[in-house]
Amino acid sequence: MPYPLTAGKSRIEALSDGVFAIAMTLLVLKLEVPEVMHHSSNAEMLRQLLALGPALVTYVVTFLIAGGFWFLHHLTFHFIRNVSGVLIWVNLVFLMLVALLPFSAGLMSHLLVHPVSQLFYFGNQFAIALMLNVHWHYARRKNLLAKDGERLEMSHLSWRIGVVTAAFAAAIVAAIVDPPFSALAFLICFVAGVVLEHFRCQKV
Amino acid sequence: MPYPLTAGKSRIEALSDGVFAIAMTLLVLKLEVPEVMHHSSNAEMLRQLLALGPALVTYVVTFLIAGGFWFLHHLTFHFIRNVSGVLIWVNLVFLMLVALLPFSAGLMSHLLVHPVSQLFYFGNQFAIALMLNVHWHYARRKNLLAKDGERLEMSHLSWRIGVVTAAFAAAIVAAIVDPPFSALAFLICFVAGVVLEHFRCQKV
Amino acid sequence: MPYPLTAGKSRIEALSDGVFAIAMTLLVLKLEVPEVMHHSSNAEMLRQLLALGPALVTYVVTFLIAGGFWFLHHLTFHFIRNVSGVLIWVNLVFLMLVALLPFSAGLMSHLLVHPVSQLFYFGNQFAIALMLNVHWHYARRKNLLAKDGERLEMSHLSWRIGVVTAAFAAAIVAAIVDPPFSALAFLICFVAGVVLEHFRCQKV
Amino acid sequence: MPYPLTAGKSRIEALSDGVFAIAMTLLVLKLEVPEVMHHSSNAEMLRQLLALGPALVTYVVTFLIAGGFWFLHHLTFHFIRNVSGVLIWVNLVFLMLVALLPFSAGLMSHLLVHPVSQLFYFGNQFAIALMLNVHWHYARRKNLLAKDGERLEMSHLSWRIGVVTAAFAAAIVAAIVDPPFSALAFLICFVAGVVLEHFRCQKV
Repeated sequence: MPYPLTAGKSRIEALSDGVFAIAMTLLVLKLEVPEVMHHSSNAEMLRQLLALGPALVTYVVTFLIAGGFWFLHHLTFHFIRNVSGVLIWVNLVFLMLVALLPFSAGLMSHLLVHPVSQLFYFGNQFAIALMLNVHWHYARRKNLLAKDGERLEMSHLSWRIGVVTAAFAAAIVAAIVDPPFSALAFLICFVAGVVLEHFRCQKV
Repeated sequence: MPYPLTAGKSRIEALSDGVFAIAMTLLVLKLEVPEVMHHSSNAEMLRQLLALGPALVTYVVTFLIAGGFWFLHHLTFHFIRNVSGVLIWVNLVFLMLVALLPFSAGLMSHLLVHPVSQLFYFGNQFAIALMLNVHWHYARRKNLLAKDGERLEMSHLSWRIGVVTAAFAAAIVAAIVDPPFSALAFLICFVAGVVLEHFRCQKV
Repeated sequence: MPYPLTAGKSRIEALSDGVFAIAMTLLVLKLEVPEVMHHSSNAEMLRQLLALGPALVTYVVTFLIAGGFWFLHHLTFHFIRNVSGVLIWVNLVFLMLVALLPFSAGLMSHLLVHPVSQLFYFGNQFAIALMLNVHWHYARRKNLLAKDGERLEMSHLSWRIGVVTAAFAAAIVAAIVDPPFSALAFLICFVAGVVLEHFRCQKV
Repeated sequence: MPYPLTAGKSRIEALSDGVFAIAMTLLVLKLEVPEVMHHSSNAEMLRQLLALGPALVTYVVTFLIAGGFWFLHHLTFHFIRNVSGVLIWVNLVFLMLVALLPFSAGLMSHLLVHPVSQLFYFGNQFAIALMLNVHWHYARRKNLLAKDGERLEMSHLSWRIGVVTAAFAAAIVAAIVDPPFSALAFLICFVAGVVLEHFRCQKV
């Protein structure tokens, strides 16, 4: 490792927080303000807002999924002390996939039940989850972590990142087999993971 | 609490500052530059700018309201020392509502006096205020705060957050009963709250 | 001052850096990519890019002026130690005017020589400069500054902020009297200020 | 140096991280969501996504190049201790060129093989690299660096910044001589640089 990058952790964190904050906030630009007139009735106006339903659902779900990825990424950096050049490039690819979310969400909100848009949307999320695995396991293997004392919590985090990845993999399979089932498959896997996680935590 | 998240406060603050800064700055994209020609007269040009009046007022008011929420959120973190997983999820929902402001503001600036757009706009603000209450009271109840010595100032902050929430609740009621009265109702409640607050502070 | 806000300096700085970074970067969205075809000649393509000239000049100038304001704002915070509620609200109004820059720049780049657009553009800059004065002199008067030992450097900074304000005031007057002279008036005042500043510095 | 700017390093870093994060994330806005209908076939939908190929490639490449510039910029600040007024202005010009990337990328993704768009795109990247050289060598010459002990690593960094600059210069020359060769020329120079660098590192 030719460069001493101990000071670098705070800046890759800052760049990550920036990209996450922007990608999450740009999602709102996919919600187009309906062009109604002043004299349009309340019923007409409500109908217009309800037509935005799928886009609003996509906004809420994508924002929270992205927030979840931010949380997991943040947890990994709780344990990481040293940053190497390779880790920074892994993070840049990770962030490139995060910054793609407004596009995937736009595809999803226009074409909510279309198999191809579902495939792209869940594919993007799966790729993010995959890079998070690469990032975390690379840091573990290369001894970039801070403390040896929290072995249990670290394997805990590995497991948590794994659950999210599996849930998105299931969503992709479902999108190919039976598109409308796609979101449901994701939900089932995710909730199952969270519940199992919860019991595991209490044992700890 | 399976993860030690004492280091996490600075990053949820960074994400919050990012989302607030972006949501507030994206408001400007709702101000469309008028397409006038070089040879248009000054009077024509001024008329075009004046037509942007409602959008400009919405921009200024929404920016300052969002700034106020940022300030209150910032004050809560002055007292919070520890961050739990639940608190981070509460904050992510809070930020999701903050990031929705450019959409609500766009709705408001196009359709300034329409009851449905007012309802949506004040509903968004009210939901932000509500989540701020959840965030603050959860942190207080779960003993995530830093110091015991500032009890007075903390109940002071609870009260301040409550006033803002009440003011937006009043605006929603007014938007249903008598739309044009809506902004006024908000203003009355808000000013009353600030004045009462001021007297309270001086007693302290 | 009911709230102890000593910890708050770093977060108002973070919000400011965020708003400045976003407002400055959003300027680029005013540069529309020309819609040319693959088969268009190089001469045609160059002509299209040259037509973007005024917009590019506006981009460069506005980015650097905004950068200059960021620099001055940053210098004031070098001296400020404590932050009060009033100072935060002054800063929020300041940032609201900074976030308006992409709109003013859009107006300027479409209508480069129009007196009304010049008035709005320089008016926006002047308002930013004015709020910077309010911010700085309020902090000085209310004893929110960190060190007593740098009196000379602080009055130096007051003078520098004053020069920028005067230059934009001159640009506004010029925009009313003789529009094409407006940018020149700004330049003359600004350069004069910088030169005088330079000699002052060397004496120190 | 009239102002003591030792505290300023963290804020110019924060502004840089902000501008980089935004410029990189705004690249996604150049990917327009195809307007297809719900009843369009999967083949039709895939065809539409494949038509976005050049834009997606431009997105990925530009994001990673920008990430590389961020990394190099970050490495320079690892060594820089003091910040002067001149260095801040050099950085503002550097950031102005970084913020221009969404425009250059938009030009490139619409007109992938056009010589003029290639010239503009690689010209923008070359200008960024050039300013990075100015920034780094100015800091070295003016003794703004932190430690004397890492001479080898610092000359190493100079060399690395030089390689990137040379690679973009080669791309510009290629864009003039033989446009389709442009990206290849860049790739060859870049890979050659990285390989040479790698051997150099191992010797160290």
